[in-house]
Amino acid sequence: MNKTEEFFEKIITVKLSPDKKAVNIIDQTCLPSEIRRIDLHTKEEIWDAIKKLKVRGAPAIGVTAAYGMAVLSAGIGKEDYDPFYKEFMEIKDYLASSRPTAVNLFWALDRMERCLVSNKDKAVSEIKEILYREAEDIREEDVNISRNIGETGFRLLEDIREKTGRAPGILTHCNAGTLATAKYGTATAPMYIALEHGWKGNDLHVYCDETRPLLQGGRLTAFELSEAGIDTTIQCDNMASLLMKSGKIDIVFVGCDRVAANGDSANKIGTSGVAILAKHYNIPFYVCAPSSTIDMKTETGEGIPIEMREGSEVTEMWYEKPLGAPGADVFNPAFDVTDHELITGIITEKGLVSPSYKEGFKKLFS
Amino acid sequence: MNKTEEFFEKIITVKLSPDKKAVNIIDQTCLPSEIRRIDLHTKEEIWDAIKKLKVRGAPAIGVTAAYGMAVLSAGIGKEDYDPFYKEFMEIKDYLASSRPTAVNLFWALDRMERCLVSNKDKAVSEIKEILYREAEDIREEDVNISRNIGETGFRLLEDIREKTGRAPGILTHCNAGTLATAKYGTATAPMYIALEHGWKGNDLHVYCDETRPLLQGGRLTAFELSEAGIDTTIQCDNMASLLMKSGKIDIVFVGCDRVAANGDSANKIGTSGVAILAKHYNIPFYVCAPSSTIDMKTETGEGIPIEMREGSEVTEMWYEKPLGAPGADVFNPAFDVTDHELITGIITEKGLVSPSYKEGFKKLFS
Repeated sequence: MNKTEEFFEKIITVKLSPDKKAVNIIDQTCLPSEIRRIDLHTKEEIWDAIKKLKVRGAPAIGVTAAYGMAVLSAGIGKEDYDPFYKEFMEIKDYLASSRPTAVNLFWALDRMERCLVSNKDKAVSEIKEILYREAEDIREEDVNISRNIGETGFRLLEDIREKTGRAPGILTHCNAGTLATAKYGTATAPMYIALEHGWKGNDLHVYCDETRPLLQGGRLTAFELSEAGIDTTIQCDNMASLLMKSGKIDIVFVGCDRVAANGDSANKIGTSGVAILAKHYNIPFYVCAPSSTIDMKTETGEGIPIEMREGSEVTEMWYEKPLGAPGADVFNPAFDVTDHELITGIITEKGLVSPSYKEGFKKLFS
Repeated sequence: MNKTEEFFEKIITVKLSPDKKAVNIIDQTCLPSEIRRIDLHTKEEIWDAIKKLKVRGAPAIGVTAAYGMAVLSAGIGKEDYDPFYKEFMEIKDYLASSRPTAVNLFWALDRMERCLVSNKDKAVSEIKEILYREAEDIREEDVNISRNIGETGFRLLEDIREKTGRAPGILTHCNAGTLATAKYGTATAPMYIALEHGWKGNDLHVYCDETRPLLQGGRLTAFELSEAGIDTTIQCDNMASLLMKSGKIDIVFVGCDRVAANGDSANKIGTSGVAILAKHYNIPFYVCAPSSTIDMKTETGEGIPIEMREGSEVTEMWYEKPLGAPGADVFNPAFDVTDHELITGIITEKGLVSPSYKEGFKKLFS
């Protein structure tokens, strides 16, 4: 096992335990102070882990739910299909209630159910094995998506290195990393793929916006990249302008939650500001997006609703005493939409899409 | 006393105690949880208050030091000039050691000394009264500078209100408020002057960047403005782009530490990013600068050194446990420089300077 594989073994968000009787996750609520891996044996433990954000990130939640269904199905003590199916569905509905806004959770659970139903003629013991394989497939597909995004992004890094003769400086925002997916992350995939292609940790330098208010950049992205041995720096979100001005940033990679048909991209709050700064300083800005996040039914970013969250996340979370003025309101949107005109390219697992995005997406899906 | 005067009476950063035997300050280390005013009687108490940032902001520190010298001089039990001068100088040197990088501290102490020396022929009892008046003058001058800046900025708010028919939305960054100066602040002066002209608290709405890492915006600016009854909102620095996009911001006012001869302006880290966003969204961006901060000997912003501070301010301060990844570096610059091309105008106590700033400053100082 090489160093990069050792890293993934240690950090990987979710895997099956060796005896296949538990879902093994890294407890993200302990990061970055402590690397604690936990086995989830019961449906209550899995529910709790999703609910309390011990595992987070759409693809990672999907894989956890899929593994969870496989593990829990294996434990159902019924030999006939009908009672087996009944118990399967009770578990499924229970897990679905852990995080009612996580689309990928339902997607993975529904896919496990479809797999079950389409194999109803087989023996229950055989179905149990098939469910394990289906969960494995879900994981594999996500790994492949990330790997393809990473290969495309890596070629951009190679170009920069060739042109400048030095280690590319990369800025990223929030956590679209291995901790949010099955393996490579999306925005971080180009960096991990660089390692797999033999780059050393100081052949690139990643600058992580700490990403207020929940600090996913400082706590998670900076953690996983530095654990992988990559040169990593944390900065406050408001320091990105000076970093870019000082010539330290060659390229920006960000993840995304949803892309409209015209290329407008919703991602963690602050992403649109990074894109405006990048444009000002003439730095290429790339969105890393599995094609499943491209929503052709939503014409523009105007159609993407912005979730507003509790003000206490800004003024009370993390702090020993409230730090916001009690007489002031708090504005706390979870996302913003980056205008397609600010985006140099959208990197999907099917390749790089350049403007105009409308046409590019049509080709992608044809 | 009207409501605005009552507010200033309660919040004013520094004043003389009624018996003139102490400097009375609002302890900023207790804000925003608690409004605690403290009397500083001894030189040790004054030194400690400056050292521990109980009082902060260049003009506020200057006024504190001046009042301090007046109060402590009044307590010197010498009737002849020479021993009085000797003790005065011991106190002065002691106070100067409280914050060795605070230029305004030395400026105020030197001015008090010059005042003393130029009145050496008078009786010590009379000199003591003159020193009180000199300290009062230093305060008054700062109040007048802020008031003039505020009147000019207020006219811009009136224009917006007339044009849009609604309460102007103002974005500000860090604390260039009453808590940093003798009365009106610089970036906040237009808002307080608006109240003095009869505007109500909901005739304007101020959006305060929380201003990482030290949170002066959320802790101090949002505190003082909401105490004054002004509609106030706190947002994370990375939320300014969405605020601007949604049409909530009509104008930006920021303070500054130093302006170069071409108009490049150094201010709290993140200011340059706000200016780039404002330009992108076509929102006017004004720097509020006492003319004493315009440094004609520094040609451009390139000549302004950027102070780098400890990374622990980003990853450990305020938090119960370290939140940055231990393996990552931290980039923590205290300031950045906003390019003059991004600045709509620089508001000084002598009037508004529009581009080109080189010519404007020449006129200003002629």
